[in-house]
Order: sequence, then structure tokens, then C-alpha cells
Amino acid sequence: MAEDWLEQIHWSEGLVPVIAQESGSGRVLTLAWANREALALTRQTGEAHYWSRSRGKLWHKGEESGHVQKVRAIHADCDRDVVLLEVEQAGGIACHTGRHSCFFYELRGGAWTETEPVLKDPHAIYRK
Amino acid sequence: MAEDWLEQIHWSEGLVPVIAQESGSGRVLTLAWANREALALTRQTGEAHYWSRSRGKLWHKGEESGHVQKVRAIHADCDRDVVLLEVEQAGGIACHTGRHSCFFYELRGGAWTETEPVLKDPHAIYRK
Repeated sequence: MAEDWLEQIHWSEGLVPVIAQESGSGRVLTLAWANREALALTRQTGEAHYWSRSRGKLWHKGEESGHVQKVRAIHADCDRDVVLLEVEQAGGIACHTGRHSCFFYELRGGAWTETEPVLKDPHAIYRK
Repeated sequence: MAEDWLEQIHWSEGLVPVIAQESGSGRVLTLAWANREALALTRQTGEAHYWSRSRGKLWHKGEESGHVQKVRAIHADCDRDVVLLEVEQAGGIACHTGRHSCFFYELRGGAWTETEPVLKDPHAIYRK
């Protein structure tokens, strides 16, 4: 019963796309994917967890960088096949490139153009 | 050359997820999917076009309802495998249920709870 909400998600091959939107600014920061475990952990811990498709494993966002996403609310769309997290972004950096948002390209004159500065060198973010 | 930007998208089985975010309010309205043709038409016409996975065909959003999405900007994320459209939503209704946004469920007390009113009866929206 407690996990009814998870069963009401329409999973696609066990995954659902998850948009993270920043509280306050309304900026869309990231789109990642979650499986049941990741979404359950997101709710339990109040920090965004995803399923890394490239690494094939559970991913606690910020586990290396410290740039966790504190979850203020969990939304779903009409078909319940997309999840939207309302988050506070630790460090103000969501992107592995060191930018605030992952959506830093804009199509201008037919070319993808970078529109956001790198706030922190990725080498400094991910050094061991 | 003219369509380099399309080739720089990382397509997944020919599709890319597309988030539509409302200019001004910052509300996330919809997440849908586009193929090359849909994204090219989105740019050419200035109105959002998608690929309907359920119907298996090109979908000019608003073609039946009139609730087109006027595109103000086209963004992409760091991996260029997600597109974000900045849109003005005709009629103020993005969702086929007659609501402003498709993201009208919020997880409250472990249950998906509706948080937005129906602005227009879907039968009135889609009547022939």
C-alpha cells in the first residue's frame, strides 16, 4: 500500500524521465532517469536519486561533487509517465560541466551557442 | 550544413525528449518527444511539433485544440540529448485534460494529488 504511488507511475522499461526544476528561479536544471529504487530513495531521503543509464547504476546526484538536489516537491504529469522534482540545487551547480543548468545551449542562427558561464572548473569539482 | 544543429542532437532511436517551459511563468507545461522532422518543423514554423509515440505520427501540438505552443527559444542540454523549448501557450492550456500544465499531480502524504483546476472541459476542446 505504502508504495502505491510508485506503481501508479507508467514505467518504460523500468525507467521514467525526471525533470529537476529549481525552486524560486524556475530554471530547468537537468533531465535524468529514475527507476523505482531511485524514486523511492528520492522521497525517503529528500535528495534526488537517479538511475545512470551510461553507468548502469543507481546515482545519488551530488555523491561525488557535493552538488546534491534537495527535493521540495515531487510532481507527475497527466499520464504519470514523467516526474518533475522541485529542488534546491546545492552549490548552485547542476551540470557536470560546472554550469548552473545543463540547458546552456541555445539555438541561435542555426548553431548551438553556449549561453552560460562555467562557475567552477569540473576538475576542481570532481577531484578525488 | 543548414541542418548541422539537428545532427548534433544525440537521438535515441530517432527521438529526443522535449520539455516545453512557459515564457514568463517558468512553468513546465509538457514533456513530449520529437524526431528530426518534428524539430526541424518546430524551428521553421515557430510552433512546437512533436512525434506522437502513441499514435506513431507527426503531431503539430494544438492542431485539433488550437492550443499551439509558440516557440520563443530552443535550448539543449550539455549532452544534447534533451531539448527545452521556451514557449507561449495558446489558450493557456497545455494539457489534454484542459489544465494549464500537464504536471498537475503532486505527491502528498504518499498519494498523487491533483493540484490544478480544469480550465476547460476536454469535450469542448476536442469536439469536431
